[in-house]
Parts: sequence; structure tokens; C-alpha cells
Amino acid sequence: MNSDIFVDRLRDAVGSERVIVDPDIMNSYRADRTTTVQGEMPRVVITPSSTAQIARAVKLANEFEVPVIPQGALSGLAGGADPISGSLVINVAKMDRILDIDPVNLLATVEPGVINKTLKDAVAKEGFFYPPDPGSYTFCSIGGNVSTNAGGLCCVKYGVTADYVSELEIVSPTGEIMTLGRRTKKSSAGYRLAQLFVGSEGTLGVLTKATMRLRHAPAPVAGTVVASFSILEEMGDALREIASKLSPSLLEVMDQETVRAINAWKNLGIDEEAEAVIVAQSDVKGGEGAEELKLIEAICAQSGSGEIYRTEDPDEADALLEARRLALTALERLGPAILDDVGVPVSRIGEMISEIAKIAKKWQITVGTFGHGGDGNLHPTLVLPSRDQEVIEIADRCFADIVAAALSMGGTISGEHGIGLIKRDFMKDQYGTEEIEWMRRIKAALDPKWLFNPNKVVFDRLMP
Amino acid sequence: MNSDIFVDRLRDAVGSERVIVDPDIMNSYRADRTTTVQGEMPRVVITPSSTAQIARAVKLANEFEVPVIPQGALSGLAGGADPISGSLVINVAKMDRILDIDPVNLLATVEPGVINKTLKDAVAKEGFFYPPDPGSYTFCSIGGNVSTNAGGLCCVKYGVTADYVSELEIVSPTGEIMTLGRRTKKSSAGYRLAQLFVGSEGTLGVLTKATMRLRHAPAPVAGTVVASFSILEEMGDALREIASKLSPSLLEVMDQETVRAINAWKNLGIDEEAEAVIVAQSDVKGGEGAEELKLIEAICAQSGSGEIYRTEDPDEADALLEARRLALTALERLGPAILDDVGVPVSRIGEMISEIAKIAKKWQITVGTFGHGGDGNLHPTLVLPSRDQEVIEIADRCFADIVAAALSMGGTISGEHGIGLIKRDFMKDQYGTEEIEWMRRIKAALDPKWLFNPNKVVFDRLMP
Repeated sequence: MNSDIFVDRLRDAVGSERVIVDPDIMNSYRADRTTTVQGEMPRVVITPSSTAQIARAVKLANEFEVPVIPQGALSGLAGGADPISGSLVINVAKMDRILDIDPVNLLATVEPGVINKTLKDAVAKEGFFYPPDPGSYTFCSIGGNVSTNAGGLCCVKYGVTADYVSELEIVSPTGEIMTLGRRTKKSSAGYRLAQLFVGSEGTLGVLTKATMRLRHAPAPVAGTVVASFSILEEMGDALREIASKLSPSLLEVMDQETVRAINAWKNLGIDEEAEAVIVAQSDVKGGEGAEELKLIEAICAQSGSGEIYRTEDPDEADALLEARRLALTALERLGPAILDDVGVPVSRIGEMISEIAKIAKKWQITVGTFGHGGDGNLHPTLVLPSRDQEVIEIADRCFADIVAAALSMGGTISGEHGIGLIKRDFMKDQYGTEEIEWMRRIKAALDPKWLFNPNKVVFDRLMP
Repeated sequence: MNSDIFVDRLRDAVGSERVIVDPDIMNSYRADRTTTVQGEMPRVVITPSSTAQIARAVKLANEFEVPVIPQGALSGLAGGADPISGSLVINVAKMDRILDIDPVNLLATVEPGVINKTLKDAVAKEGFFYPPDPGSYTFCSIGGNVSTNAGGLCCVKYGVTADYVSELEIVSPTGEIMTLGRRTKKSSAGYRLAQLFVGSEGTLGVLTKATMRLRHAPAPVAGTVVASFSILEEMGDALREIASKLSPSLLEVMDQETVRAINAWKNLGIDEEAEAVIVAQSDVKGGEGAEELKLIEAICAQSGSGEIYRTEDPDEADALLEARRLALTALERLGPAILDDVGVPVSRIGEMISEIAKIAKKWQITVGTFGHGGDGNLHPTLVLPSRDQEVIEIADRCFADIVAAALSMGGTISGEHGIGLIKRDFMKDQYGTEEIEWMRRIKAALDPKWLFNPNKVVFDRLMP
């Protein structure tokens, strides 16, 4: 083994058993789930078990001026956790304990490596509800959810991860252990540092503990409505009307490509002649839930839906939802897939899906679009015939056109996955020079050596 | 009139009719509603009507290195809008137009001077609900609400102002017009600058336009429950149990001093032998609202409430709520009053009210405590026998003891009023050196000349 004083000091700081330098093992820490980018080989990976170990490691990184890449479950979809050459990777996946569930103040305190579903299940047992539910909820972790401000199917009614952040313990870029936010329900005491940290994608420190807000468990889902539309514009009309009048607990959309891919795999018999299908649920208590679903059906019928199906059977509802959750995997079966994540105002969903179809046609690429119709967040998924260089280049231009279309409708370049590496070049299209400049100045102020995830979000690899 | 080049240039920049230098008139811009502090005489006050005017004025302030104090309705309760000597006051109260109500994306765009109630009423007409409702909602403005992250009675169920912020237009401390946040329901694109701006109390720029999220109108209130408790601890038990199991749309608390002050004024016949009274409402739709109220009554009875009163009469409910809203005014009738604003975890409300009573006894000062029991935010109000210096000094120590008690219970030094001048010295008790240091570094990064409200929140008057 080569001598590396930094690594030797790390071993003293966190324990040899938590330090990985074997390139074969380090290789498995080189990339998240993003298919289009790949990280470089880090200098060393550590898998700490405590905040104190992380603080010691970060102090050392400052001393040796080694870039730091925070990592968790590696389930990210924007390359945000990909290492750069020579960096220290701090992977907190093993810090995975639920520390406390407070049933009066409706808070759960967890280590960052706790899997989203593990938290959901644990609080559900005590009658509570932790809403955020990214597609990856069975294998993504709370640390990553906080770092990307993750969303999910729940957002249409229950909001995003940021809405559930109460208090965060972090190790700052200079190695200090800090507490951001407050466990009280309200606090107006200085800058909202916890909210600044949310979505900062590992550029402002490592999350070491998170206190998340809970809700009371909602009523069981009253039923599920599936409505198909042969004209995209009419689906858009229906979504607009639903958004304006009702608060469904789920309101998803899938285009024809997506439905066909799902049917081809799972044979669920969803109408694949339709241009788009929406799936809606209500969890309002008592008869009001059924009433809300009836209104959704009525709106869909009035808007021109050709086929409306409703079920109160929870198993059937689960199967439909599972089908929607498997949209990405179904499309991936057809070829190498590139997943996008754009948001538009709900009023423009129909228009956006239609625009995506035009862009797909222009570049002659198959694009399946699905996503969270009720909150305007879509996942157009490019399915490529091959990984040939010229195909990838065309795909990149198609991807860029989709992002530009979202922005032209007042949208966002990322609804819930984050910027990481893959959206970095689009940040200047969403924001003006001044907003980017504020982000850079904040980064420089809080990470003066520019060590933390130095090449992500709006940053280049080197200090500015 | 003395010659003042800065003022002359300001006249050119924003129009003479918007520039005030008459000391008698400027005097009325010297203080918000905080009784214990008073601002100094500014150099000049402007009352702009557009973002462009503000940007020009701020550029000039940078050129002449003149401190800038953003102001709105002057309804603040922490001295956050009080000028310092020689400063430029930018009062945006006259920028009071509602620019747009978007019924599909559930957004309202307003100028900062729009009064909270004006916005509420305007969106209610179209079937929507803007929840934040500070006690001052009939005369406070949205700009101030955003700047302090204001709360209100709604927060127990519907959250605080921050939860309703979508997109903000500001003029930065260097005079740039910037757009923070995004109108989409979700966005994971870089640092959450809009959330950083919320609650920054005029230290990071002037808010010039705010797009706020709306909700669908809730069902009419199903009824109101008033329960009185002769033992404070039993009231605390009831609140804990309600918080753990139910989601009332209102859950207020008043102690004996407060109830007596209200009865003495309005003669509402609320039980004034009780140590504490809670007022609860439910706005759940259909029969579920009545069901929720029954459960609240049952919990109160089980916890030991001596008297439980329930009404479905909306007029009577309004009268009870009005009484609660008038708590401060009722206490002010008894003598010079100092209003506090602390938060504790809901689980510790009973304990906190009891602790406040002990502190009041220790300093022999009358303290009436009321507030938002359901979210842990209390307003202990010191009623002084006189404004004599020795009385004020004792009151200050009593006030400090109350703040310390809240912190000792994991609470916050401000639930919804902000820090301004009056809580500045307590910031170091709530946060560690590092958290304060982050706030200072962010301030220095975004306001490099340290011009904006330079003496508020955690800052001293001079650049560090």
C-alpha cells in the first residue's frame, strides 16, 4: 500500500475499519443511479458511524485541502454524489438508526442513512404519516431526500421534503458540528439556515442527523380513478379544473409511450390507445373522499375523457400505483434510458407533454413522459436505440430542448432530483447572473476552501 | 433646507414627491409598534411606487454608503423597522396592489404593501384561502409578514408565512433586481434563496413583489369549544393529547390574567376562576368536523376540565375569537404592556405557562399569557404599574427570565414576531457561535457594504 499521510491520519480519526482505499471496493462508490454521468476515482472512502468521526475527518480534509463528497444511498438521479478524482468520500449510509419518534410534537429524529420507507413504516406503526415518497422510497435515504429536497407522489397534497424539515445537525465544511433550524413548530429567529441547507446537495456540509415533522395518519384511500384521454389538450383541461377545485391525495399522469411500455411488461390493460392517462386518489375522511372522486370523474368526463375507471379495491389500487411507480423501469426495458425531471405550472401540463412529443419527433427519439400531474413535475424519459456516440449526442440535444421548453413555460429545470452534474449547465438558463452570484457568494462564505462537492450545482471544480 | 447631495440625487431618482426630509413627517417613520424601543431620526424617507425606483435608490445608497432601512406597515413588534440615525428609510406601504390571482396554480402575486386581510378577502371571493393570520392581520402587510415569517392563529393546522412563499422579487443590498424561488409547486434547482430571504427582517434587501401560495377554501368552522381548567398541568395534558391525536384548525390558550382582563373589558363571561382556558375549532368537512370537536371535548373532560362549552353559532364563535384576538389590547388597558413572543414544543406548554407565573411572582410583575397553544407559541405580556426606570429594569429582567425558560425547554426566543432590536441580545442563547457566524458570513457575502438594517437580528450597527 502506498503511503498516504492523509489516509493514515484518517484511520486514526475514524478507525481503520471505516477507511476504504481498495480501488475495487472504491469503484462501487463512484456513481449514483444517473445513467449519463460517472464519477472519478476518489482518494479514499470512509463509512463513519458517528457525527464526531465525520467532524474529525472534515477537519483533516481542511488541513490537507482535500475535496469532500458526501454520499448516502447512492440513489440520486443527477450525479450529485459522484466523486471527483482525489477526493474524500464520506458515505453515511451506515448511520441508519431511527433515534426518536415524538408522538406529541409529531417529530422523528433519524440518522441520515435511514431509508425513506423504513421511516414511513416506523411512524405508521404509531399512527403517524411521513409523506415524502420519491419513486425510490424503498431504497433512498432521508439524508439524500433532504439534500435534494426530494418529492414524490404525495407532493400534490402534502408538499416536499423541505416542508418536513424541523432541525438538522450537520458537520460544516470547516468541520464544526452545527444545529440548524428548531424543533418548535414555529420560529422567527434569524436566518433560516435549515432551509438553506435543504437542497444544497452536499455543497454546504454533511448532514448527520435530521428531525423531520410528521402528520397524523390520513384516512385510508377512498378509491382510485383512472381516466384516459384521446386528446392531450383535454387531459390538460381536466388537470387544470381538478387543481383549481379539489385536493386529491394523488394525481399522476402517463403518456401513451409510458402506458404501452407498462402494458407490454405487466399487462395491466390500461387504455393504450389514449394519448394520456391520469390516475387520481382521494384520502379525505368519511363520505367526502368518495364525493371528491365523483367530482374528479365528472371533471374528466366533461373534459372529454373516453374511458373512466374507478375502483375502491385497495389491492387493485396498489397494482395501479405500482404500475405507475414502475414506469421508469418499464421504459428502461426498451433500451438505454435517460430520465429527465422538469417542472411546469400545473396549468401548462398538457401543453408541456404535447411539446415534449414534438421535440421527440424532431429528434426521432422515443420519449415516454410520466409524472406528478397535480404538481406539474414531469419525468420525460428518453429511450435510446443504442449507446452509440452519435445517438448520445442527439439525445443530449433532445434533453436540452425539453429543459428549454419547461423554462419557456415558467418552469424549473428540476422538480425533485436536483442539479448535481447533469443540470449544472442549465442553471444559468433558469436564473439570472445575480441569483447565481448569490449562490456562489454563499458557497464561498460557508465553505471558504471550496471543498464540499466543489463541482456540483452551479460550481466548477476549482475555487472561483 | 440644507443642501444634501444624496437627497438631491434621490429626488432625481425617485421623484421629489416621494422624498421626505421634514423632521415632523419623518418622525412618524421612526418606530413600529414595539413599546420598548424607539428608532432614531433618519436622514431621509422615501415612499416609492415601483421596483425600479427602489433599485435606483439602493444604488445611490451604495454610492453614498448610507444605511438602508426597509419598512412597510410599521406593525412590527420587535423594532425591526426602526431607523438608525442618518439612514435612508424605504417605506413600501404605498406599493399595495394585488397584481394577479391565479386560480389554477393557486397563487396570488402582490406588492409588499398589500394588507394581509386585503389579500385574504380578495382570494376568498374567488373561493381560495390565504391562511397566515397574525393578530395584526387587519393592518400588517405581506411584505412584513414575509420579512418576519409571521404566523397567527392558523398555524396549528396551516403553517406559517414561509410555507406560502412561492416567488419573491427583491432589490438586493447592492441594488440589483432579483427573482428568488419559483412559481412551480416543486423546484430542486440550487440554493433556496427565497426561503433564506423569508424572516431576514430587511437585512438582505427590500421585498418588492411576492407570489404567495393559496389553498382551497376550507369548510366553514364546524363549531367552537371553550374548556377551562383549574389546574394548569391538566390543561397541558389536554393540549398534549389533542396535538398527538387531532388536527384542529384553531387551538388557542389564555391564562387567568388574560381572561380577567378580557372579561373586565368585554364581559364575555369566560370562566375566570380557571387557571387557563383553551379555545378550539375544527374546519374538517361534513360530519367529521363535529366528530373532531366531540373528541376534543372528551379529551378536555378526561384531562380534568371543569367547564366545557361548545357552540355551533358562528356569531358566538366570532365573538370568542375576537376576544382572544383582543387579549393584548385588554391587557394594555391595565398599564404599560411589554409583549413577548416565545415558542416551546407543544408538549411543554402547560409547564411553560406555569414557569411564567413563577417568574411573574418572583419579579412581582403582572404577566398575562395567551397564545397559540396548538403550536407552542406564547405571548406572555408584562403589565407594568408605571414607566418608571426601576420598573422598566425589573421588567427587562423578568422578560429575560421568560426567554431563558423557553430556551431551557428546547424553545425559541421568537415564534413569529422576529428578532429586530429587542431579541438581538438573546440570539447567542439560542444558537451556538457557529450558527451566528454563518448568519454573519451570509450577511457579509450578500450585503458587502453592510448597509441593510445593519443593527438588527444578530448584527451590530457597524460592519464587523
